[in-house]
Amino acid sequence: MPTTLPADPHVTPVPLDKAYRLINHGPTVLVSASHDGVDNVMAAAWACALDFQPPKLTVVLDKATCTRALVEASGRFVVQVPTVAQLALTHAVGNLSRHTDADKLAHCQVALWHADGLPLVAGCAAWLACRLIAEPHNQQAYDLFIGEVEQAWADSRVFRDGRWRFEDADPRWRSLHHVAGGHFYAIGEALAVDQPPPLG
Amino acid sequence: MPTTLPADPHVTPVPLDKAYRLINHGPTVLVSASHDGVDNVMAAAWACALDFQPPKLTVVLDKATCTRALVEASGRFVVQVPTVAQLALTHAVGNLSRHTDADKLAHCQVALWHADGLPLVAGCAAWLACRLIAEPHNQQAYDLFIGEVEQAWADSRVFRDGRWRFEDADPRWRSLHHVAGGHFYAIGEALAVDQPPPLG
Repeated sequence: MPTTLPADPHVTPVPLDKAYRLINHGPTVLVSASHDGVDNVMAAAWACALDFQPPKLTVVLDKATCTRALVEASGRFVVQVPTVAQLALTHAVGNLSRHTDADKLAHCQVALWHADGLPLVAGCAAWLACRLIAEPHNQQAYDLFIGEVEQAWADSRVFRDGRWRFEDADPRWRSLHHVAGGHFYAIGEALAVDQPPPLG
Repeated sequence: MPTTLPADPHVTPVPLDKAYRLINHGPTVLVSASHDGVDNVMAAAWACALDFQPPKLTVVLDKATCTRALVEASGRFVVQVPTVAQLALTHAVGNLSRHTDADKLAHCQVALWHADGLPLVAGCAAWLACRLIAEPHNQQAYDLFIGEVEQAWADSRVFRDGRWRFEDADPRWRSLHHVAGGHFYAIGEALAVDQPPPLG
């Protein structure tokens, strides 16, 4: 783990073969990137796992976003999983553009750590540090970006031993799932197939 | 709506400009396709919205799946949103292959409707009928398929007037969010940004 991460005992490396599990349940994520001294963070509901090992993911980055330009220039980005406690922050970074407000991150109350030159949003439940796999046709035609996950971390209060613990953690750690406008759902109860719910 | 859909008053067309909302919150989906008289259904956690209008989506289809071959041969497929009541079915179609069990659908207790030649899984919360946008490089290198949504429907008991109503519906209508193995989460409580949860 890069020594530039904070000495927070809750932030724990996630083995790369388990990294897909951080986003497998479809949370809305924050995408951050940095280039030439400029950091930015946006929200993205359209992010998805793509492969197990090496872990890859897709994320849709609109041409209007400042973060996209930082991803294209630096070839690196972070996908992180925000929590119910970060609902207002998540909505704010998804609706305010750095193109119109250079102090966007301060106004959205985003605190960043830096790890190996990448900006990570403090307070999230998990972080996936990605290297862009350049696919110019996808990027231009579909705004679709592919990343290979090179490092991953999670907060051990909600993800431990390779799995989410939403059912045991404070409900403010639950992931956010955007539907439209300012409307989200939190992730809910755990279900296991050997214990199907009653149908009656 | 094709006349081959059942005369179920709950199955309601969804306007195409709202179709993205059916999967925006990241549910695990079922993918179905049909070719030359063969129907199949698989589960996919790696499906994601890609565009608003016309609505597009991505889905990852492994080369080992029978459904992928049907998608490639027919150029069409359906992405549908299964429910908590379909937990066992969802797990079963994700773990049993038609390559080894020609009666997979019967053994997984899948009931199909057919609309305009496409197989739709009865009992789901929503259906998105897609036309494959052929992208051979993505399909070969990443198992990544892009579809344009041509028609969409939802069950009005859980999706009405362009939005999900999980908070008002029977909890068995909630969407499934797969993490790993037989472990899922159901979608949970509704959150609106103008009503953030207490932080204290």
